[in-house]
Amino acid sequence: MASSGNRLNKLFAAPLSVINVGLASFAESLREQHIAVIDVDWTPPPEGVPRLTQTGGGIAIDDANAEVIRRILAGRPAIVGLGIARDVIPGMADNTLLHSGPPISWDRMCGPTRGAVMGALVYEGLVKTPEQAADMAASGEIVFDPCHHHHAVGPMAGIVSPSMPVWIIENQEFGNRAYCTLNEGLGKVLRYGAYGDEVITRLHWMADALYPTLADAVALSGPIDLRGMIAQALHMGDECHNRNRAGTSLLLRALAPGMARTCADSERLARVIEFIDGNDHFFLNLSMPAGKAMLEPAEGVPGSTIITVMARNGTDFGIRLAGDPARWFVAPAGVVEGLYLPGFSAEDANPDIGDSTVTETAGYGGFAMAAAPAIASFIGGTAQDAINTTREMYEICAAEHTHFTIPALEFRGTPVGMDVRLIMETGILPRLNTGIAHKTPGIGMVGAGVLRAPAACFAEAFDAVKAW
Amino acid sequence: MASSGNRLNKLFAAPLSVINVGLASFAESLREQHIAVIDVDWTPPPEGVPRLTQTGGGIAIDDANAEVIRRILAGRPAIVGLGIARDVIPGMADNTLLHSGPPISWDRMCGPTRGAVMGALVYEGLVKTPEQAADMAASGEIVFDPCHHHHAVGPMAGIVSPSMPVWIIENQEFGNRAYCTLNEGLGKVLRYGAYGDEVITRLHWMADALYPTLADAVALSGPIDLRGMIAQALHMGDECHNRNRAGTSLLLRALAPGMARTCADSERLARVIEFIDGNDHFFLNLSMPAGKAMLEPAEGVPGSTIITVMARNGTDFGIRLAGDPARWFVAPAGVVEGLYLPGFSAEDANPDIGDSTVTETAGYGGFAMAAAPAIASFIGGTAQDAINTTREMYEICAAEHTHFTIPALEFRGTPVGMDVRLIMETGILPRLNTGIAHKTPGIGMVGAGVLRAPAACFAEAFDAVKAW
Repeated sequence: MASSGNRLNKLFAAPLSVINVGLASFAESLREQHIAVIDVDWTPPPEGVPRLTQTGGGIAIDDANAEVIRRILAGRPAIVGLGIARDVIPGMADNTLLHSGPPISWDRMCGPTRGAVMGALVYEGLVKTPEQAADMAASGEIVFDPCHHHHAVGPMAGIVSPSMPVWIIENQEFGNRAYCTLNEGLGKVLRYGAYGDEVITRLHWMADALYPTLADAVALSGPIDLRGMIAQALHMGDECHNRNRAGTSLLLRALAPGMARTCADSERLARVIEFIDGNDHFFLNLSMPAGKAMLEPAEGVPGSTIITVMARNGTDFGIRLAGDPARWFVAPAGVVEGLYLPGFSAEDANPDIGDSTVTETAGYGGFAMAAAPAIASFIGGTAQDAINTTREMYEICAAEHTHFTIPALEFRGTPVGMDVRLIMETGILPRLNTGIAHKTPGIGMVGAGVLRAPAACFAEAFDAVKAW
Repeated sequence: MASSGNRLNKLFAAPLSVINVGLASFAESLREQHIAVIDVDWTPPPEGVPRLTQTGGGIAIDDANAEVIRRILAGRPAIVGLGIARDVIPGMADNTLLHSGPPISWDRMCGPTRGAVMGALVYEGLVKTPEQAADMAASGEIVFDPCHHHHAVGPMAGIVSPSMPVWIIENQEFGNRAYCTLNEGLGKVLRYGAYGDEVITRLHWMADALYPTLADAVALSGPIDLRGMIAQALHMGDECHNRNRAGTSLLLRALAPGMARTCADSERLARVIEFIDGNDHFFLNLSMPAGKAMLEPAEGVPGSTIITVMARNGTDFGIRLAGDPARWFVAPAGVVEGLYLPGFSAEDANPDIGDSTVTETAGYGGFAMAAAPAIASFIGGTAQDAINTTREMYEICAAEHTHFTIPALEFRGTPVGMDVRLIMETGILPRLNTGIAHKTPGIGMVGAGVLRAPAACFAEAFDAVKAW
């Protein structure tokens, strides 16, 4: 007992650390006494939001949501091939450009989306210069449509033009397919709004060399399981949105034997491998359509308050509910709290942009932040902050994933299936990870960071449910 | 305040959980009341072991240890090539077989080491059958020598025969080199004592196809940094001993472009990639010699009580101190607490075997268990157990690594540099991760697990220091 008492004395002799939940003023008075304080970002939930159990028309919401969750968790996304957008994406005409987020017209598009549109029209050979491209985009000749209206998703600006190669992902449980372009890397790239010669040259190399090499490999190897790959990556420090190093590594392992067997040009094969190795985000353009492929079969269950689409076009932030998948609920896109590349600052940042929040919607990305503490530290946080982020997201999700688990949480399933009712009841808004694009067309990436989704679209969606 | 009070009430209304440190009987009485109890494996340190500050001859130990730690942390291991053992390992004659652990003669060798010796002699073409090999091994024609006496390390039985290909690792800070064979995979493999046709066939394929493919790639690409690769792998769920999935993935990324450019035979290239992809332990045979390359320059600092070699031959467990690197302190090899492959049990297990504890010695492996919670769960533990393992190892280490860090511990450096004084003072024995070989020659792997190093060799080493 002497030893035990001694240890107790040591505990209380040690410097005091306080965890402060709630009013910041409590923490301030402790800080004035030079006591270490950890603030927990917590506010009491809004009063007076009763649990909605039925829609206005009497549909039992919990039953509807259970069916939606069942479908999401049953999904088995796999790479089944690659193709050219105009050939494989339904409803894609030669004058169609797909973009991220909810619907938007050229006049309301943000800088990086305009920049990516301009670059895409140059890439397509429809114009010679970005200036001509801007004129064409404004002329009405081009049909702009959300990726989400075509079973596709696009990171950042998310521009998909007709001759771009895309991954074809099939949910092998339900047979539906989803599409996404190939990831270009970081920095001066189209999806961040850059459109210079190096961007266009890279896009042509991707179509001429990268695409056939990948397509031939997948054709030989057959479907490549993405659910298992995401599950593994979550055990290897990725959250599959802002960090994709493990996913990219595992993907290369899966693709490389087929590439070796089908690519007779050794130098092209080497350059393709170097391109993948040189871009730790290469897997993002697979984790995204994998999420889309898992979420789409859950759409159209009457009465469901689960969010199956959450996406931004750099101007607006939009969500859609499984119970009414045709309707967008929209609010202004938020400001990202980020870390900036040298030479850039918050003043350069465009608001939140891209379909990559499909990862959070599908139960990873920011919702699996506990799996990827390196991201938290990248923006000045701690591993504990990362755990707290995931813990908080359980509060607004209807389920825990049965296939995606987090080692640091004793292999607990990730939070999945945001329920707009829980968001309203708790006042907790979804936490998102994201890249940051320069607000001016033509520049590109300036940083990466985190933010919360805007409240207004959830409130509007919640009101709509009452009228269903 | 009502809200705050409410939360406090909820806390105390919740089921009680107790952490019990020390006497197990306290926990029993709580368990009888159906209260959840977490036992902390803690015993009071042995009494009467004063801190030794000087050797018998008056050398200041802390100063010596500081120099040893400085050298270990300065190490920059890199793959600089591959070669055939007889050509590149110093002191390797045509009748030499290297083995893991401290020195041992044929008559005292354990089953898996005998099995691996028998297989190696068949592989070398010196005999036709394992039975003939056993006769040759017993005849005195073969010189057995520890890998550690030749700047080499070998997993499990650790047999290196003259015509086996080996990795050449150079510590680019000090210029010293270390060597290790190529990893064969799991199951029926030579290092676990198997010697059947499939084992010999695989070894020939490794020499004829795998080796030249890897060697040509490294020759083209130049040195491949292993310190950075281990550091990354520790952020991706590996501890680089029992789990090497991330390390293997990162290695393939580094090697593949060079392999693509130098291997004209597409099918051979594809099979080499598939072999690496099919064996998540492929990187072990690099994390091991990387550790050896970092530890050797620290040997020979008079007065240092830091352990620079810790290795087992399946019969004996041995350590060596930086202050007297020629002398082994030996104790019987321990029993592994493990998980067994289907059809096998603890009765089949050989005692602890292999040089792979070089990873723990160099500050990763079991000492970085907090980085790899999946291993803890594999043997029935939790992520918290993994964190506790690493936390405990800080108690017996002289330093925290400046290059290898653990996300779950807020990127704290891994414990590195076991000090035999701290082991004696705290009574805490090193925790080791390991595979488990069948005790009978010819069978192979039966499981994997954890254990602690045996106490006697540390006590003997501590006594020796007093006489220095």
